[in-house]
Amino acid sequence: MLSATRLLSSKDVATVVSHLGRSCFMAALVERLSAALRCDNQDRVSLARSGFAYNHPKTGAQGLLEWMPAMDVGPSRVVGVKAVGYHPANPVGHNIPSVLATTSVYDPETGGLNAIVDATLLTAMRTGAMAAIATDLLAPLGPITVGLIGCGTQAVTQLQAMTLVRPVEQVLAFDVQPQVALSLQSRVRFLDRRIDTQPLTNGTSMLNQIDVLCTATTVEPGAGPVVMDGEHRPWLHINAMGSDFPGKRELPQSLIERALVVPDTREQCIAEGECQYLDPELIGPELGDLAKNEAAWSHAKGSLTVFDSTGWSVADLVAAELVLEHAMVLGIGQSVRLQTWAGDPYDPYQGLAG
Amino acid sequence: MLSATRLLSSKDVATVVSHLGRSCFMAALVERLSAALRCDNQDRVSLARSGFAYNHPKTGAQGLLEWMPAMDVGPSRVVGVKAVGYHPANPVGHNIPSVLATTSVYDPETGGLNAIVDATLLTAMRTGAMAAIATDLLAPLGPITVGLIGCGTQAVTQLQAMTLVRPVEQVLAFDVQPQVALSLQSRVRFLDRRIDTQPLTNGTSMLNQIDVLCTATTVEPGAGPVVMDGEHRPWLHINAMGSDFPGKRELPQSLIERALVVPDTREQCIAEGECQYLDPELIGPELGDLAKNEAAWSHAKGSLTVFDSTGWSVADLVAAELVLEHAMVLGIGQSVRLQTWAGDPYDPYQGLAG
Repeated sequence: MLSATRLLSSKDVATVVSHLGRSCFMAALVERLSAALRCDNQDRVSLARSGFAYNHPKTGAQGLLEWMPAMDVGPSRVVGVKAVGYHPANPVGHNIPSVLATTSVYDPETGGLNAIVDATLLTAMRTGAMAAIATDLLAPLGPITVGLIGCGTQAVTQLQAMTLVRPVEQVLAFDVQPQVALSLQSRVRFLDRRIDTQPLTNGTSMLNQIDVLCTATTVEPGAGPVVMDGEHRPWLHINAMGSDFPGKRELPQSLIERALVVPDTREQCIAEGECQYLDPELIGPELGDLAKNEAAWSHAKGSLTVFDSTGWSVADLVAAELVLEHAMVLGIGQSVRLQTWAGDPYDPYQGLAG
Repeated sequence: MLSATRLLSSKDVATVVSHLGRSCFMAALVERLSAALRCDNQDRVSLARSGFAYNHPKTGAQGLLEWMPAMDVGPSRVVGVKAVGYHPANPVGHNIPSVLATTSVYDPETGGLNAIVDATLLTAMRTGAMAAIATDLLAPLGPITVGLIGCGTQAVTQLQAMTLVRPVEQVLAFDVQPQVALSLQSRVRFLDRRIDTQPLTNGTSMLNQIDVLCTATTVEPGAGPVVMDGEHRPWLHINAMGSDFPGKRELPQSLIERALVVPDTREQCIAEGECQYLDPELIGPELGDLAKNEAAWSHAKGSLTVFDSTGWSVADLVAAELVLEHAMVLGIGQSVRLQTWAGDPYDPYQGLAG
């Protein structure tokens, strides 16, 4: 007899996060992901993602559906697969987020489906958490001024997570849709530390006024970069969050060539991230390697650094496990009997009447 | 606003199949899959599957979890991913099938999750249907005697589907677990045509007494083949269903080298099927190419042929679509609101209270 499948809807996930407090949940996520990055690569295994990219025949809209598998080989041994869609026309066309995701969790003893968790909020949160970890490892210590290019969903969690690792003094915010840069202030009002976000009408001029830059845009493949190279503080750290598709780029060539570029996963960043445009010899250590050898890389805090984020499937599994644990304690979610067998396991029709 | 996600449990799928009648459902599946094989490859796109293979740390049991993505590019445009587990210790250890599967269906306009369908029965049925199509294209016309090596779940649907394309006169059945060969008769009692299944204590001797052989075993990688080469009827057709893992094989080298070997998908069969052991030049056309050019291959019906089946992800999508259509009409299944958004699509926390 297989156990029931636990379902956590987007609403259930929001309820869990709300119950713990979004800052507390984010802090827990940062802590778990830091630990996952520092532990042996053999403990958590990630498979290269694959997916379909297309233009919708009726609307012409760009779309991408991908699967990101990860396996936790530790004592809690589970397999997770996040199915994630990227449809940049969603917000304007359907009033829904551009990134929708679901993580399915399987029992590797039987192959049974343990849980299905809406991962839309979790994707935004784990991406913010990963950027915060990179910022903590690579950005200068002390209060920082943050630049944001792209002020959508990701900008909110980027900023939130960053406040956990550095005092954020000021935010310069640019978006190609000016109203999205304007509305950012209200979307980050929940943060404990009051942050002044200043919307800019031109993003290219911000480089020399900031300590940390986050690019989180939906720029189309071939249309980047989203920022021009120029004068900047020597210790500038950049979280390049948006480049996750062949041909997509957010940063200029000259900048990434003189920076220490740290990919989340080397292979995937070479396929989809800013690392597409770098000679493999110029690519720095993976974030996990850097976290494991933090002292050896402490000099990076004073120089130009880039975190090239394409998405780490292990982070999705860690996030799903975290929310499932708390949902269990709180009694949130529903159980459905998706898989039931009660007869001869060699008879495919044992469940049939007649 | 995204539509609710439709859930079809294993019980719901059984109810739909039961309502239509399992013969009728199988016939519909054969028809749809024949059409899918004959239509242009551009209309339905399949991605190479990937997955995790492991031995469970506590039980040592062999396990495999894979994802098989397919996209229907036609007017009904959907993306389907089947997650499928293969855990050969399941029947004896847990009294559940060795193959458990779930197909998730996505809307490629938004990335929304339309449906989750238990695909355990469907996997067995579509595999049987594919073998029947191959048998129809490659086996001699007229009544046939069928040999089965491996008498588990797959043997039931193999035999069932085969009765739709040929009159099956007699069945010789062998399984390494004699009681599984013995119980086959009761598991195929539902078939319209009364079939006499004769359990054998030794599978190697059956080759010269049969017209069609189906191998559907859980033989371990490195332990095959499951049948010895020997005298056989010149027109022998073999459905090699079990080889779907690196190192796994069911058929002897000498036999596959002199046969016309037809893979379901060439690339996947070279990685996991009997084609692993063949010089690529010796591999015949894919089943779809053969179906599209049936007349050109009619001579194959008189000679030794092998259908190398590793599993075609498009077949899983076709099966899921078929059962969803009928479930909709019959009002079977349940709808859950897994994904709901009702606010600013740029605010990841819009669903949160407070």
